[in-house]
Amino acid sequence: MRNVICCKCVRCGREYPAVPDITTCECGGILDVIYDYEYIKTKLSKEILKKREEPTMWRYRELLPIEEDTVPAGLRVGMSPMYEADNIAAELGIAKLYIKDDGINPTASLKDRASAMAVTKAIEAGYDTIACSSTGNAASSLAGNAARAGLKTYIFVPARAPKGKIAQLMMFGANLTAVDGSYEETFELSKAAIEKYGWYNRNAAINPYLGEGKKTVAHEICEQLCFKAPDYVAVSVGDGCTVAGVYKGLYDMYKVGFIDKIPRIISVQAEGCCPINTAVMTGEPWQPQEENTYADSIAVGVPRNPDKAINAIKDSGGICVNVSDDEIREAQKYLARKAGVFGEPAGVTATAGLMKLSREGKLPHDAVIVSIVTGNGLKDIDSAIKAAGEPKHCKNDLKEFEALGFFD
Amino acid sequence: MRNVICCKCVRCGREYPAVPDITTCECGGILDVIYDYEYIKTKLSKEILKKREEPTMWRYRELLPIEEDTVPAGLRVGMSPMYEADNIAAELGIAKLYIKDDGINPTASLKDRASAMAVTKAIEAGYDTIACSSTGNAASSLAGNAARAGLKTYIFVPARAPKGKIAQLMMFGANLTAVDGSYEETFELSKAAIEKYGWYNRNAAINPYLGEGKKTVAHEICEQLCFKAPDYVAVSVGDGCTVAGVYKGLYDMYKVGFIDKIPRIISVQAEGCCPINTAVMTGEPWQPQEENTYADSIAVGVPRNPDKAINAIKDSGGICVNVSDDEIREAQKYLARKAGVFGEPAGVTATAGLMKLSREGKLPHDAVIVSIVTGNGLKDIDSAIKAAGEPKHCKNDLKEFEALGFFD
Repeated sequence: MRNVICCKCVRCGREYPAVPDITTCECGGILDVIYDYEYIKTKLSKEILKKREEPTMWRYRELLPIEEDTVPAGLRVGMSPMYEADNIAAELGIAKLYIKDDGINPTASLKDRASAMAVTKAIEAGYDTIACSSTGNAASSLAGNAARAGLKTYIFVPARAPKGKIAQLMMFGANLTAVDGSYEETFELSKAAIEKYGWYNRNAAINPYLGEGKKTVAHEICEQLCFKAPDYVAVSVGDGCTVAGVYKGLYDMYKVGFIDKIPRIISVQAEGCCPINTAVMTGEPWQPQEENTYADSIAVGVPRNPDKAINAIKDSGGICVNVSDDEIREAQKYLARKAGVFGEPAGVTATAGLMKLSREGKLPHDAVIVSIVTGNGLKDIDSAIKAAGEPKHCKNDLKEFEALGFFD
Repeated sequence: MRNVICCKCVRCGREYPAVPDITTCECGGILDVIYDYEYIKTKLSKEILKKREEPTMWRYRELLPIEEDTVPAGLRVGMSPMYEADNIAAELGIAKLYIKDDGINPTASLKDRASAMAVTKAIEAGYDTIACSSTGNAASSLAGNAARAGLKTYIFVPARAPKGKIAQLMMFGANLTAVDGSYEETFELSKAAIEKYGWYNRNAAINPYLGEGKKTVAHEICEQLCFKAPDYVAVSVGDGCTVAGVYKGLYDMYKVGFIDKIPRIISVQAEGCCPINTAVMTGEPWQPQEENTYADSIAVGVPRNPDKAINAIKDSGGICVNVSDDEIREAQKYLARKAGVFGEPAGVTATAGLMKLSREGKLPHDAVIVSIVTGNGLKDIDSAIKAAGEPKHCKNDLKEFEALGFFD
């Protein structure tokens, strides 16, 4: 990979050659992929991008850690829509709001970006089996992308994962284990099994390439805004890998000169599970927390990627905000009704954070903000019906219909 | 609309001016939108299309019934992925199979194409409220696209509609009525209410513009195959509107000279509810049937658009095949595991039909076939789990994991 210099530990700084099945540093630290941006600038320009027809995350391949002759594997991932939501911006009291709907990806979450990268790297490395633990979305995206690529999967999810994600996993033919325990225990079991059986490791905080897939959401945000950087990018935070990926994508865009500033990250966690935001807000090392939120994708009491996440928030001059489950439910309905975007609970948490910051008068009136929706609401139908209610019933009778109360 | 000549009854041939809120013919027949293809050929070429950046159904706007200055409303619909599935083609014994995954649309079904058209025409016509009846997908897509466009909706679904679709409708803020009765009764109630209250009518077999939205799936198929027409396009059939739309899109492409033949339609219905296929296969007028299939989107015993559907199948030299619910469940797992595409039951019915035709030796070995997946499997999670099974459980213990039987 001529564009990649090495993989470097974010904790101790040690450097490693970027082989396709590299995991963590000997010190236990997470690795970051280091690029040769000067070389990349000779290969990629805004004009080249504009002419590129590829409607996927791979349109940014000069900024991705794959060999020049690698054919990307998996489903058609990326280039999700970004909607201008002037009505919501007006209500939040800001200049512009854009909703980046990543729930439209093939298995209905942003995690498809990491999983498409994972199957591509696994094939580069010569593996035929790939494994991960996940709160659900990484799992279902891995299962789908691996099915498309012809790889076997072993997947571990907490037994609490919503039925939609379980259904996807079973359908895609994953060898699926539902772990009766927390996400932490699920992760530990997957780690032990991967070590024993030598499968390709798609655990996001272990495999440094996955965040490199996720970062393409930020590349797209910049390109969709014609490379005029927004002031803020709001993102829901659980494990820390997604926010780290978003920052990395923005950093890439800045380093190749496509944008002239790095937007500030707005990191939104659930009040009932906010170890990363707590660490940033207090300046203390992060501490494990309970997983007290119904937003399953961000119910991560022991984040696996706190270092990169905390760096991302701090280095961008970011803002942290925590929201209640009720505020998440409110945001879910609000976003669906005002923008036509139905996100899963964790998927709308970023928007819940913006709503709260707006109520507290903390958003500048001239702010241009992008809010990322990380997953589709169909992933967790039971929670959605609880939030939005049940329909009214009647027989085929106009009088009965009129008595339902729509016109009261 | 310089590109549109008129709306013409498919039954009696009477012609009407193409006003934006036109419905059916005085004779009760369904209208077809008639284009001036010679004029369109002066405005649209393959080369113009190739250069067009718009990644939506509106890239074919010269072939769509909207005013030249109309700004399309609704969500970002269309340009769904089409996957080459060589592994499945080999097993079916055909030359090429392409899976067109329309479940990736914003509200997760092909119906988004019709609903984006509906909200666009409703705004052209000056309406602020739009209504429909639906087995579920037309409803949820209307609710989502209308929410994005700022229109109010009144929506009627049979009470049997799966929870995923209900959840979408409630989230998008539709005024939703679940009708305790068949689809036929649901339709009748919507008709009565629309007549009384004067809402814009998004019932697909009433409003001639909706099929014009749906047809863009066929435009895309042709463009994605670089205008080399496939031999067959397989599609699941319920109400008849989708198959009619698919044929219309292929017809358009042929009439403007972009393809050199019209592919043959493979019309697939459920054995428990197949009035349209029965009519084509027997040559008799269609007769109402029971709605005995779990594939809710095509459980339509009284199709609202039999004329256009039957013409489409016949005019293309099409093939009819009916499949059992078990065959649909089998196709659902097969497609997810072999192609990474998780469709809802009606969404995979076309593929179930191909599997059956293959077993019966009815598919030519040199055939190039496109199979359309009309909706995402997350719409109906309970059915998916019934088909694919529940996961195995264990605690965070490698021995327990190894005893689950994955390696037996």
